[in-house]
Amino acid sequence: MTKEREQKVIWTRKDLLGLEELSKEEIELILYTAEGFKEVTTRQIKKVPALRGKTVVNLFYEPSTRTRTSFELAAKRLSADVINIVPESSSVTKGETLIDTGRNIEALRIDIIVVRHNCSGAPHILARSVKSSVVNAGDGWHEHPTQALLDMFTLKSKLTRIEGLNVSIIGDIAHSRVARSNIWGLTKLGAKVTVCAPRILIPEGIERMGVKVTDNLDEALKDADAINILRMQFERDEVLAFPSKIEYFKQYGITKERLTKCKKDIIVMHPGPINRGIEMSSEIADGANSVILEQVTNGIAVRMAVLYLVSHAKRI
Amino acid sequence: MTKEREQKVIWTRKDLLGLEELSKEEIELILYTAEGFKEVTTRQIKKVPALRGKTVVNLFYEPSTRTRTSFELAAKRLSADVINIVPESSSVTKGETLIDTGRNIEALRIDIIVVRHNCSGAPHILARSVKSSVVNAGDGWHEHPTQALLDMFTLKSKLTRIEGLNVSIIGDIAHSRVARSNIWGLTKLGAKVTVCAPRILIPEGIERMGVKVTDNLDEALKDADAINILRMQFERDEVLAFPSKIEYFKQYGITKERLTKCKKDIIVMHPGPINRGIEMSSEIADGANSVILEQVTNGIAVRMAVLYLVSHAKRI
Amino acid sequence: MTKEREQKVIWTRKDLLGLEELSKEEIELILYTAEGFKEVTTRQIKKVPALRGKTVVNLFYEPSTRTRTSFELAAKRLSADVINIVPESSSVTKGETLIDTGRNIEALRIDIIVVRHNCSGAPHILARSVKSSVVNAGDGWHEHPTQALLDMFTLKSKLTRIEGLNVSIIGDIAHSRVARSNIWGLTKLGAKVTVCAPRILIPEGIERMGVKVTDNLDEALKDADAINILRMQFERDEVLAFPSKIEYFKQYGITKERLTKCKKDIIVMHPGPINRGIEMSSEIADGANSVILEQVTNGIAVRMAVLYLVSHAKRI
Repeated sequence: MTKEREQKVIWTRKDLLGLEELSKEEIELILYTAEGFKEVTTRQIKKVPALRGKTVVNLFYEPSTRTRTSFELAAKRLSADVINIVPESSSVTKGETLIDTGRNIEALRIDIIVVRHNCSGAPHILARSVKSSVVNAGDGWHEHPTQALLDMFTLKSKLTRIEGLNVSIIGDIAHSRVARSNIWGLTKLGAKVTVCAPRILIPEGIERMGVKVTDNLDEALKDADAINILRMQFERDEVLAFPSKIEYFKQYGITKERLTKCKKDIIVMHPGPINRGIEMSSEIADGANSVILEQVTNGIAVRMAVLYLVSHAKRI
Repeated sequence: MTKEREQKVIWTRKDLLGLEELSKEEIELILYTAEGFKEVTTRQIKKVPALRGKTVVNLFYEPSTRTRTSFELAAKRLSADVINIVPESSSVTKGETLIDTGRNIEALRIDIIVVRHNCSGAPHILARSVKSSVVNAGDGWHEHPTQALLDMFTLKSKLTRIEGLNVSIIGDIAHSRVARSNIWGLTKLGAKVTVCAPRILIPEGIERMGVKVTDNLDEALKDADAINILRMQFERDEVLAFPSKIEYFKQYGITKERLTKCKKDIIVMHPGPINRGIEMSSEIADGANSVILEQVTNGIAVRMAVLYLVSHAKRI
Repeated sequence: MTKEREQKVIWTRKDLLGLEELSKEEIELILYTAEGFKEVTTRQIKKVPALRGKTVVNLFYEPSTRTRTSFELAAKRLSADVINIVPESSSVTKGETLIDTGRNIEALRIDIIVVRHNCSGAPHILARSVKSSVVNAGDGWHEHPTQALLDMFTLKSKLTRIEGLNVSIIGDIAHSRVARSNIWGLTKLGAKVTVCAPRILIPEGIERMGVKVTDNLDEALKDADAINILRMQFERDEVLAFPSKIEYFKQYGITKERLTKCKKDIIVMHPGPINRGIEMSSEIADGANSVILEQVTNGIAVRMAVLYLVSHAKRI
C-alpha cells in the first residue's frame, strides 16, 4: 500500500460494526494502520501512548478468552485502561436491557465498548444508543470483522496483495460470522472467494454474496492461493446431523496428501482453536503452509489499528 | 461551597464506613473534592497521577458489576493499580475468616480495600483489623455511603444546595442501605427527608432517624424538590407479599401523570438498574427530570474523591 | 550474602520450573535479588519500571486467589501489563491442548506465562513448547517453587542464614508440593530438614530426598529452629481416613503448651490459609513466633525477583 493511497481516505466512523458497510479504501486504511502497530509488538517495550487516559470496556455476552485477551492486549499496548465486564454476573441478570447497559457504560465516560453478543445486530443497536465507539467482536452468525481483517492482514503480508487471489473458505459456512466477514472483505478487495462445505452447512442464496459454492473439497483446493478452514462446532444440531467426526475428516479434513495436489505455497489459515484430526491433521496445523499462529500475532496489530482509528475518527 | 469552608476541616479518617459517623463538614469536604475530580473525567486524557504506585483491592462478597466497575475506574483514573478479588472463587471457600482475609490483603501492602459484604458491619470489622484504608461499597441493609454521596453530589450540582430541600425516598426502605445512607447524609446537610413505601416495606422506628414517613405517594411527591426511587428487588419474600408488580406500579410507580402534579423542575434519581414499568415508566426514566445517568457519571468523581481522601488522611 | 557471592553466578534460565534443578548459587541469587525488591514494596510509590512494556499472563488451571494475586501484584509493581486467563471459561472447554494454548499465548507476544496446573510436569511441557518464559505457580503434588523461595527468604531474614538450621515440615507431606519444593531448596542451602506427619501422609522413600522422617511431633519440634506447618486438606480421601479433625489437632496441632518446650525463638511458618484449631491454635497463628503474614509480604518481593530474572536471563 503506497503513501498516496493512504491519503485518499480518512477514517470518519465512530464504530466498527462489520465489513459489509466499509469501503475498499477504509479496509485498506485499517490494514495499513495495522502495519505500523505490528512493528510496535516486536519491540522490547511493546507499548505506545496512543490511547493513554482512554478507557476500553470489553463487554462479552458470550465467553471468548481468545478474542477478549487479544482486544485487552491491544488496548493495553496502546496504554488504554481496560475494564472487563462479563454480563452474566452483572446487571443483565437483573433484567437490564442492552441499551440501558450501554447508556450506563457511556455514562462512565468509556471511550470504546468492544462487544460480543449472541444476537446478530446487537452491536449496531448499542452503537446507535451511545456516543462511545462500539467495536463488534462477533455478533451471532452475522459478522466478526476484526477476525476477517486479521485474516486479510495475514494473507497480504504473506502474498503481498489480496486482489486476484483465489481464497477458499471451508467448513460450517452456515453458522460462521467469520465466513461472512471474510466474504465481505475479500470480495471488496478483489479476491475470488469459494465456499466449500457439506450442503447442509451452506446457507441458501450465499451465491448472491459473490462467491462460488461447492461441496467438493478437491474443487475448492484446486486453484486456491489460500484456504481458511473454519472450526466445526459439534455441539450444534445441524453439525451432529453429519454422520461422524471421522466421516467429516475423511471428506473435508485437510491432510498432507490433499495439500500435495494444491499450489506449493498455499496458505493455510484457521481462526482457532483447531480440532486436530477433524478440520485438519496435525501435520498441516503445524506445517510449513500454516500461518495459524501468525494470525494470532497479527490479531493484536489489527485490533490496535481498529481501536486507534475509531477513537481518532474525524467527525465530519 | 466556598474556599474558606473547605479549609475548616481536614480529612483524618483512615476509612469511609458510613455517613452516620461523618460530620456535615466531612461530607461537604468529600463533595468539594469530587468537584475537582469531576473536571478530570471530562478531559481528553482522563487521568491524574494522584494514586500512582498505590494499590486498591476490590473485595466483593456480593457481585456488583456497577459499583465494582465504578470503583475500578475511579482508582485507575487516579493511576492506582487495581486487583479484583471475588471471594467465592478464593480462600473463603477454604474457610478463611474475614479478618484473616483482611490481614492477608494488608500483608500484600494494599493501600485501600473496597469491600462489599452481605453482612451489616463487615467493613467495620475489617477496618479495625487492618492498617489499610477500608471503603464500604455496601454492607447488608446498613450503609452504602458512596451511593448516597453521589446522590447528594448530583442534587447539589443540579439545585446548587442541599440545605432546605425536600427529598423523598420511595420504595423498599426496609431493605435499602441506599436509603439509610441517604437519610444520614441528607439530614446532616439540612434537607427535609420523607420516606414513602407500602407499610410492609417501612422499618419500624425509622422516624427516629429524623424523617417523615408516609405510605401515600401523592403526599411524598407534593412538595418534593427531588425524589430518589429505590430498586424493587422482587426476589425478596417481603416484596413478593405485595400483590403484584403491576399493582406496585399502579400505587407507587412514577408516571408522567403523577409528575405533572409535582414541582416543575423536580429531580428524579434512581441508583439503578431500573425496573422500567415497575418503579417508573420509561418516559420518566428517559425524561427531562431524570438525572439517572448523571448519577452514574458523578459516581466516578465521588469515588475518586473518597479514594483520594482516605489515602491522604492526616493521621493526627 | 556478600557482593562477591552475587557475582559468582548469572541467571541464564528462561523458566523457573522447580527448585530441584536449581543450584545453590541460583537459589541464593533469587533471594539476593528479592532483597532489593522488598525495599521497593516499603516505599510510598511501590513501583519500578523494570518490566515496563512486558506482558505477564496468569494461566491458572486451578483457582488460587492468593498465589494469583501475589503474582499479579508482583508484575504490576514491576510495571508489567497482566492478563488473567482462567482456562475453565476458555478454549480448554473447546478441547484445546496445553501445548496449543501455550503456543497461542506465545503468539500474543507474551513475555512470561505464570502457570498453575493440577498435573505434575505441566509447566515443563509448556516451557519446552514456547519461547516465552514459564514460571511454575504450583503443579500437582510436584513443586511450588516460589512458595518455598518465600519461605526461605523469610527464614533467612529472621535468622540471617539457612545453612545449619533445623527445619521441620509438619502435615500432609504426601500431597504437598510446598513440602517438596522446601525440601529441595532447604537441603541445597545446607539446612537439616525433618518431615513429620501421620504415617499415612508420608510418601514412601521420602528419606532419599535427604530428610529425617518421624510421625512423632515432639521429636520434630525438639531441636527445630523453624517449623513449616502445611495446610490439611480435609477434602482428600487419605486425610479423611484420619479419625477426625479434633484427633489431628490433639496429635499434630501446634499449641502454646507444645511451643514452650521448643527453642524460645522458634519460627512458625504456614503457607496459608490456616485452619485455626486444626493445624495450630489461634494463639500460635497470631503469636510472637508466627511469621505467617511476613511470608505473604515477602511473597511479592520473591515473585518480583523471579519475574525480573527470567525476563532478563542471559541466553548463553
